[in-house]
Amino acid sequence: MTTVDLNADMGESFGDWVMGDDATLLEIVTSANVACGAHAGDPDVMARTMAQARDKGVGIGAHPGFADLQGFGRRRMEIKGESLANLVITQFGAARGMAAALGTEVRHFKLHGALSNMTCEDEGMARTCYEAALRVDPDVILLVLAGTVQEKVAREIGARWAGEIFADRAYEDDATLVRRGTPGAMVHDAEEAAARMVRFVQDGAIHARSGKVIPAACDSICLHGDGPEAVAIARSVRAALEEAGVSLKPMEGRR
Amino acid sequence: MTTVDLNADMGESFGDWVMGDDATLLEIVTSANVACGAHAGDPDVMARTMAQARDKGVGIGAHPGFADLQGFGRRRMEIKGESLANLVITQFGAARGMAAALGTEVRHFKLHGALSNMTCEDEGMARTCYEAALRVDPDVILLVLAGTVQEKVAREIGARWAGEIFADRAYEDDATLVRRGTPGAMVHDAEEAAARMVRFVQDGAIHARSGKVIPAACDSICLHGDGPEAVAIARSVRAALEEAGVSLKPMEGRR
Amino acid sequence: MTTVDLNADMGESFGDWVMGDDATLLEIVTSANVACGAHAGDPDVMARTMAQARDKGVGIGAHPGFADLQGFGRRRMEIKGESLANLVITQFGAARGMAAALGTEVRHFKLHGALSNMTCEDEGMARTCYEAALRVDPDVILLVLAGTVQEKVAREIGARWAGEIFADRAYEDDATLVRRGTPGAMVHDAEEAAARMVRFVQDGAIHARSGKVIPAACDSICLHGDGPEAVAIARSVRAALEEAGVSLKPMEGRR
Amino acid sequence: MTTVDLNADMGESFGDWVMGDDATLLEIVTSANVACGAHAGDPDVMARTMAQARDKGVGIGAHPGFADLQGFGRRRMEIKGESLANLVITQFGAARGMAAALGTEVRHFKLHGALSNMTCEDEGMARTCYEAALRVDPDVILLVLAGTVQEKVAREIGARWAGEIFADRAYEDDATLVRRGTPGAMVHDAEEAAARMVRFVQDGAIHARSGKVIPAACDSICLHGDGPEAVAIARSVRAALEEAGVSLKPMEGRR
Repeated sequence: MTTVDLNADMGESFGDWVMGDDATLLEIVTSANVACGAHAGDPDVMARTMAQARDKGVGIGAHPGFADLQGFGRRRMEIKGESLANLVITQFGAARGMAAALGTEVRHFKLHGALSNMTCEDEGMARTCYEAALRVDPDVILLVLAGTVQEKVAREIGARWAGEIFADRAYEDDATLVRRGTPGAMVHDAEEAAARMVRFVQDGAIHARSGKVIPAACDSICLHGDGPEAVAIARSVRAALEEAGVSLKPMEGRR
Repeated sequence: MTTVDLNADMGESFGDWVMGDDATLLEIVTSANVACGAHAGDPDVMARTMAQARDKGVGIGAHPGFADLQGFGRRRMEIKGESLANLVITQFGAARGMAAALGTEVRHFKLHGALSNMTCEDEGMARTCYEAALRVDPDVILLVLAGTVQEKVAREIGARWAGEIFADRAYEDDATLVRRGTPGAMVHDAEEAAARMVRFVQDGAIHARSGKVIPAACDSICLHGDGPEAVAIARSVRAALEEAGVSLKPMEGRR
Repeated sequence: MTTVDLNADMGESFGDWVMGDDATLLEIVTSANVACGAHAGDPDVMARTMAQARDKGVGIGAHPGFADLQGFGRRRMEIKGESLANLVITQFGAARGMAAALGTEVRHFKLHGALSNMTCEDEGMARTCYEAALRVDPDVILLVLAGTVQEKVAREIGARWAGEIFADRAYEDDATLVRRGTPGAMVHDAEEAAARMVRFVQDGAIHARSGKVIPAACDSICLHGDGPEAVAIARSVRAALEEAGVSLKPMEGRR
Repeated sequence: MTTVDLNADMGESFGDWVMGDDATLLEIVTSANVACGAHAGDPDVMARTMAQARDKGVGIGAHPGFADLQGFGRRRMEIKGESLANLVITQFGAARGMAAALGTEVRHFKLHGALSNMTCEDEGMARTCYEAALRVDPDVILLVLAGTVQEKVAREIGARWAGEIFADRAYEDDATLVRRGTPGAMVHDAEEAAARMVRFVQDGAIHARSGKVIPAACDSICLHGDGPEAVAIARSVRAALEEAGVSLKPMEGRR
């Protein structure tokens, strides 16, 4: 039976500032990428988010990013080598500590924002981050953008990994995302997004906008909770997958 | 054979700012209390300090404090309940993550600065912090100020704990430290400090300045590395203990 | 002709996190207390908020608080003497720098959160903060809680100052606010709040819940924008004052 | 009579962490570039440094950098346009507020670290930063690296500016610094550094390592205080200039 995971970024509030609708998303997804306090989240937010995920049976992941609250981890920073590894290790450690305190565990690991973007371009950075994660927990599942440098590195280092696809983004022939701003880059229609995801998952392949079919590890679908459109897409994708008989479960990863 | 541990705070540099002489202290102590990035330390400092401690066979401890870099965790803050627990959990988790990445482990847990002072006065705060630590790792050794509320709480919650005494401070009859500023509060002479520590450890008791002998868990002696006097005391204490046939080893804790 | 100012806290967003409805409040108030980046606000938020206030003819104030983003400046911190003065000076300076860059100016100065609360209890802290503000700008208007230690200190140091009253809070006989949680402490009804404010302003006096009339400097009414009730009260107060023929203008202060 | 200014970065301590030997440098230099709390410095450090500079008759400058304490402002960050302007404005404002509170003033403005490096390469960034500074104070002296994009932009926007040269660095034929790591890039000998500076200042020209003489605005010499060699060079440069009859005074700037 075909199985897929639905993931979303969560725990992105900070102090008195609220971001996202975690409660709603936790009804839809099967895995939660929890911010680790560097680009978003604080110890209290992390605790609340993980406790809710645990109670819903949603798989918990660490979602480290650059230490840049004002920029929400979306501004590129010049951090390399051991310093980059240490940044990732302490965030992953904090998340694991909180999960342990809550009687649960961190199952997966996904890079955030500019750090994720840079590791899609720079193999060395991807290797540094992923090897750092495995030094903390050799069994953690690396959630990588399917078909990118991230996946290549995860395979090379023998990690357990899962491939991620996007419900709301169009793809080029090389499995990269159509650049934002290009006409058709974003999928705004909830039914279209849902139909696409059913197809991707059932075919085990990304369908590029050219029509090209690219075999890919469609293990987990990234959903969003910012705004009514995103939530509508999230709900629609879940409903369509269930209707198509696809089983929804937290990612298991592959080696 | 009588055994004691020698501990010191370490890893208190931050970015380009250096504090303390960790390399020298690591030649003297058997346990290192490593700052966790909230009041001092950053991921790189934590990595360097733990790697050095590991290589020297020095036991590693997490040393969490208030998230106040400018105040070095020495200014009291109003953080209670779950928020306090979460503060401690994420710092402990970060330290454990780093230790795991370095192929070593965090053996003990000691509160820093104002957070330590407040937990010596407020049983509820001590309980919150220590229970939080045990939720992360039920076997961690709580390094508590011998004879204080910290020890009382560690005993009550059934934790593994070790009692800490000070080489350079005089004691009152109730086992509290003579307040700084009072004549005789500080022991400046290295030989006197060393002789005192040998006596405390061999007697299993604190000798108050009145002459009163207070049985106490003299498991670990706190040393400092800030300045030549502190280092001289540290060296002198170690030498005197060795000469007296006391075995120096990382703390094991008691229940 | 009777005149009063309407003030509200603003510029409390941070990075990608939005707080409050500044655009709506700027249609209602005549003075804006702009966060200075320590407890809330960042350089971009400060720039946007001040530019909007300037364009609306709303008077701009600096609203410094403790440097505690996670606690939103609402947790008490132990900062005294010169360190407290310096905290306030740099925040006020940052606000003045931004105002100058925008071709406008900072007219008033209001303390935020725990820092405000502590200065209502501790004359020394109030004096430290207010004298620090005057060292930066001897003509700035100190917006003080009418009838409190803040007012006393502002008078004693010969500052230009304005008294602040609350639309949504009941008063005790000594002009202090009825403690939150006490029945009747909060005024939830927009019309009642409005009627009270008209009375206070026209009488130049606070009407305590006992019925006692306490002459007070009712120079500026504090309004809020967090949630529909608060905005309804804000609109209602403004409308009632206009209907009563009270002139609404940025505070001028008194000596 | 030939005149030159001697400048150095200062106020780079943070909280309990000490950096540099400001007291010694203040005996040597005529202008101090004071960190503004983003990459180094805090309100207390800023206050102490400015008060000392004021008492010594040393000209005070604001020295803004990226908001990256851990990286000391030396890591490149992706901040552009208004956000970059606002970063600079609030730091300059904080410095001006502190100077006002201390009865003195900020006379000049010098960019720090990665922000300085980036503005030497990117005209748009230089323009954004410098225009932002002038919006706060149209008369501030921009301290620019002589012969670089920084100087070009300062001239174009009609700012008051002063050119900076380095005592301890060799120059290429295009007036750029010989890249660190290249043999001969650094001048380690105090007498050689001093002789070079006398020549540069008297000739109003940079002497490149090729022997080429490049007319340049040698208005201010950058000195350092990190370590005995740097202090020796600083002292030597000052002594040689005095001996050569060059007048040492805080920079005045040119338009």
